Amino acid sequence: MIFYDCSTAPNPRRARMFLAEKGITPEVREVSILKGEQLSPAFLAVNPMGTIPALVTDDGAVITENAGIAAYLEALQPEPPLLGVTPLEKGEVARWNAIAEQQGGAPIAEAFRNSHPAMQGRAIPGPRNHAQIPELAERGRQRLADFLDLLEARLEGRTYLATDSFSMADITCFVMVDFARVIQAQIPQGNTATLAWFERIRARPSAQV
Amino acid sequence: MIFYDCSTAPNPRRARMFLAEKGITPEVREVSILKGEQLSPAFLAVNPMGTIPALVTDDGAVITENAGIAAYLEALQPEPPLLGVTPLEKGEVARWNAIAEQQGGAPIAEAFRNSHPAMQGRAIPGPRNHAQIPELAERGRQRLADFLDLLEARLEGRTYLATDSFSMADITCFVMVDFARVIQAQIPQGNTATLAWFERIRARPSAQV
Repeated sequence: MIFYDCSTAPNPRRARMFLAEKGITPEVREVSILKGEQLSPAFLAVNPMGTIPALVTDDGAVITENAGIAAYLEALQPEPPLLGVTPLEKGEVARWNAIAEQQGGAPIAEAFRNSHPAMQGRAIPGPRNHAQIPELAERGRQRLADFLDLLEARLEGRTYLATDSFSMADITCFVMVDFARVIQAQIPQGNTATLAWFERIRARPSAQV
Repeated sequence: MIFYDCSTAPNPRRARMFLAEKGITPEVREVSILKGEQLSPAFLAVNPMGTIPALVTDDGAVITENAGIAAYLEALQPEPPLLGVTPLEKGEVARWNAIAEQQGGAPIAEAFRNSHPAMQGRAIPGPRNHAQIPELAERGRQRLADFLDLLEARLEGRTYLATDSFSMADITCFVMVDFARVIQAQIPQGNTATLAWFERIRARPSAQV
């Protein structure tokens, strides 16, 4: 198994944490987004969409997208379960993973990609360049603030985001909230449930890899 | 089981098709987005995020997000499988579902919500109003054109999008491509593989509900 990773980007970090939680240790190949290597002919031959993460299975199939990689790995090696066990748990994990992606991750990406000088022309991942839209960066910041409120309300009295167990939803949300540093955003000091949850996830060995 | 639906919107249509393919017939309650009913106190008591679809299980749990509803229903009633059977199939379905959402559905939603007069102030779903960003509407159109190219390349020689069987990826992609009519976009005449696939999915009884 070969894992195409990028140590500085949030989406490959999600897959890296998922692999670490499963105890799976593929061959790792670093693709530097800072150097634009995701658009090199060598990497586009692996994933023509030019996105990371990408996983090459032992049979040579290429799986991209965190959702794809997680679904594959969970079926390949069910223990420890990271996508829930009962129907309701599976529903809750997928639900909160989607909320963390769309209401947390997407606004942070919008704010970062539409404002940071290093992201000029790179407002959207992939082979096509897209100009930055400053209004979108501002909207991303507003939406992130709303998401952090939602997250605090959800985590009040809870150990993990989706179910009683650690899951992919915690991975997605943790990685996204941690990545908010690139837009100088952080968990508000009064959001004690979120701060405690964040430290709980950060203490896991998979958060160190 | 109670299904909160909206007959005019693409995301609830995805869940509606998924239910129909499973042969599950919940009690249906229509929530009119055109009338703003998704933000009524009655519906916010069901789903405080004010988004549709929402599914209330027989145990009274509320599941939102298409990903959550699909994961729940697939585990509750595995036949017919709509999320793949083998690890690779599960990976491919989740992968192409994510690509259809992010590279097809998101650009259409951006183009529609940031340009249509009926969507003024509603550039993002949920309780908070967001102003339209005209540049984002234009970018959405460009990205949709790229997605339709990607889709044609993928469907060349294939019956279904993700695997050899019909899956949730076909549902998501079909509903999104069909919804592109709201921005006066359509499958280019030369994209024969996509046109044949679209008619194949449209002929299914689940596409009529």
